[in-house]
Amino acid sequence: MLLQALREQVLEANLELVRRGLVLYTFGNASGIDRGQGLIAIKPSGVPYERMRASDLPIVNLDGRVVDGEMRPSSDLATHLVLYRSFSAIGGVVHTHSRCATAWAQARKPIPCLGTTHADYFHGEVPVTLELTEEQIRSEYEARIGDVIVSTLAGRDALEMPAVLAAGHAPFCWGRDAAEAAHHAVLLEEVSALALAALSINPGATPIPRAMLDLHFYRKHGAGASYGQRGS
Amino acid sequence: MLLQALREQVLEANLELVRRGLVLYTFGNASGIDRGQGLIAIKPSGVPYERMRASDLPIVNLDGRVVDGEMRPSSDLATHLVLYRSFSAIGGVVHTHSRCATAWAQARKPIPCLGTTHADYFHGEVPVTLELTEEQIRSEYEARIGDVIVSTLAGRDALEMPAVLAAGHAPFCWGRDAAEAAHHAVLLEEVSALALAALSINPGATPIPRAMLDLHFYRKHGAGASYGQRGS
Amino acid sequence: MLLQALREQVLEANLELVRRGLVLYTFGNASGIDRGQGLIAIKPSGVPYERMRASDLPIVNLDGRVVDGEMRPSSDLATHLVLYRSFSAIGGVVHTHSRCATAWAQARKPIPCLGTTHADYFHGEVPVTLELTEEQIRSEYEARIGDVIVSTLAGRDALEMPAVLAAGHAPFCWGRDAAEAAHHAVLLEEVSALALAALSINPGATPIPRAMLDLHFYRKHGAGASYGQRGS
Amino acid sequence: MLLQALREQVLEANLELVRRGLVLYTFGNASGIDRGQGLIAIKPSGVPYERMRASDLPIVNLDGRVVDGEMRPSSDLATHLVLYRSFSAIGGVVHTHSRCATAWAQARKPIPCLGTTHADYFHGEVPVTLELTEEQIRSEYEARIGDVIVSTLAGRDALEMPAVLAAGHAPFCWGRDAAEAAHHAVLLEEVSALALAALSINPGATPIPRAMLDLHFYRKHGAGASYGQRGS
Repeated sequence: MLLQALREQVLEANLELVRRGLVLYTFGNASGIDRGQGLIAIKPSGVPYERMRASDLPIVNLDGRVVDGEMRPSSDLATHLVLYRSFSAIGGVVHTHSRCATAWAQARKPIPCLGTTHADYFHGEVPVTLELTEEQIRSEYEARIGDVIVSTLAGRDALEMPAVLAAGHAPFCWGRDAAEAAHHAVLLEEVSALALAALSINPGATPIPRAMLDLHFYRKHGAGASYGQRGS
Repeated sequence: MLLQALREQVLEANLELVRRGLVLYTFGNASGIDRGQGLIAIKPSGVPYERMRASDLPIVNLDGRVVDGEMRPSSDLATHLVLYRSFSAIGGVVHTHSRCATAWAQARKPIPCLGTTHADYFHGEVPVTLELTEEQIRSEYEARIGDVIVSTLAGRDALEMPAVLAAGHAPFCWGRDAAEAAHHAVLLEEVSALALAALSINPGATPIPRAMLDLHFYRKHGAGASYGQRGS
Repeated sequence: MLLQALREQVLEANLELVRRGLVLYTFGNASGIDRGQGLIAIKPSGVPYERMRASDLPIVNLDGRVVDGEMRPSSDLATHLVLYRSFSAIGGVVHTHSRCATAWAQARKPIPCLGTTHADYFHGEVPVTLELTEEQIRSEYEARIGDVIVSTLAGRDALEMPAVLAAGHAPFCWGRDAAEAAHHAVLLEEVSALALAALSINPGATPIPRAMLDLHFYRKHGAGASYGQRGS
Repeated sequence: MLLQALREQVLEANLELVRRGLVLYTFGNASGIDRGQGLIAIKPSGVPYERMRASDLPIVNLDGRVVDGEMRPSSDLATHLVLYRSFSAIGGVVHTHSRCATAWAQARKPIPCLGTTHADYFHGEVPVTLELTEEQIRSEYEARIGDVIVSTLAGRDALEMPAVLAAGHAPFCWGRDAAEAAHHAVLLEEVSALALAALSINPGATPIPRAMLDLHFYRKHGAGASYGQRGS
């Protein structure tokens, strides 16, 4: 892929976060990777969305070195890098402080799968990381957030659980490209709001049955997907 | 009715869901039936609302066979078909994952009739279905959702209770035509939000008296209706 | 006042409810009275706000007889009439089903005065009526709602408490004219939302001290008012 | 600084409160000070935001005397003056009744630092003042609110805790200039909403560790700040 095309895709994913009401001021960031070249386009740090152009997005390699562009990458770059290195199937990463998902992260609670809206996109409860230790906080904090997200998924297929809540912080989401990562961030926010409201109505609400979870998730994901206009 | 007119009515009902903020992305679907011909127009699966044209809506018969149109019908078609076959008085069906109504469905709690806003449209508490069994989930799931909705109403007049919450899923609504079904979906969302907030203020809040429920519901429905400019 | 001017003022108060997000569809209604002539302009029943013109508003006398205009008055007219007859200082009445105020009415709880936002407009807790008896419900229901609002205020100055919650129903508000009644409806909704959230944070939150209530209320109301550009 | 420039900055800060949805009607006020001249521009009392021009903003000295302009200053001026006199590092003050921050003030609870969104702007829990005594309420109330805010911070660096909740009232925020004060008011509202939701999910949620608080706060503030495009 040409770097220009990658930058445009990633810019578009960043702007989708704005359009969906997931970000305040310069909060949030999206990135995308070209696996062939091992190059990543990511939002620049602290630049207002309304002025952001594709050419503002720095291009970095998997070691985090800027190889093209004038601006400094998002301060969350190191977290994105760990995720790209650990989850080989993903092509985009999004981080937001969206209202309800962040509230779950601050509550240090996984989001239970209480309904099919959740099951359509996340295969089971959305996990929350352990808290970072003081040592981790003091030593390359952003990379350690990536590590703790990876260990939280513990070898699961990252595309079956495309979001993790960083404890006391906020969600990170991913997908096959930057657009899908942004899509998952929007859906995570909706699912977070639904679960918050459902538990407010009934604190004892329990997850949907496994058969229902599987049917909904695999109807939209994997080889047997049947939703939309794609298939037979 | 000409199929073109039916398609336009149903398209309009789908777009009303967007305007009222009840749907995210391609969520939700509305359909309408021409009882004379036994033909149904329904939203196509996975098509963005902003690009949807009336001619995109497939026409199916009551067995679910597409008799006109190029696109695949909504994956919820089988649920709509069961409702049309079981509730002979209805002419439109709407399914959404609207925020507060879905929260009640995820909480597996019926929505109590705590006020006159509710009583104006729903004659008593809005029921929630039983959970589907694993066998039901594995065998024509969407049709089984229709069955469990029908058994939840247990022979009541479907126009007196034009909504049911599918447990762990989301609401289905209906009306005399697609427009009224969409109207009921909007009102169900409002009533769901009101009940959630009222019970947050007072967990012991009780339903309004039967006389008040009847007065409000029958003021707007049935032979004695007196609301609006329709005459004394 | 010319009837045309009264109609325009009342139309404007109705449209203010729309602009502030207090009404859904045709919900809600505002009226205003010309005390000299004993004539009231009120929203017509079931007419969409976006098509409403001043000339659509029926003019009724204090007995509820339409003396000018083609359309039927709001079905809540009888409640407005009781309020005008009982509270001689008021010149406008507004009824809405706005989200948070209606939740308090459905919870059958008065809204405690937890802060100065409340104290600036409502002199103490906003009361909720007793439930209507079955006999009251069956006998000129709308007028009985007016009666129970009046008895809830029990001789207090209606301009010191310009809102009452009708139990299991929704709020009624009033003011010196239709515009002020609409203003109070907007503020009641805000105050209702604040109290709901405050009690969610601290269920034991208590009302502000009497001295603070009096200072805030009388700073904006009565002979000693000092707020705004009206002068020292 | 020319008074015209100060007025324009302060007008812009006032309008930012409107754009971010923090104010209803004429609620809220922002001011800014020129420390060299000891002159303050502040929002006029009770003027609609949509009609406000820079030249409407009165200029007052630190004793509260109007030295330029035709209109009366905001009724909260005396509170602003106490803050400017006590916190020498600040250049702007904002007061709002924004929904969630006001709910915390009404609940008389400090806002715990449950996450990094909070830690990025407020160095620890946002405190709430003691209630004013009846004597304080009756004697130059607005100045006494300033006093109790100052004593709540008890000698802390005002730029490390740029907001305090006035008990039973609403938040006051500040910053190095009026724009930053408005920015803090927006962030306080977001942080208030996040904490409310997080505690609704998990009433036992605890503050983030001190090391995480320090890392986030000092990454954006002080000599070692590294966020954005400013630094090395």
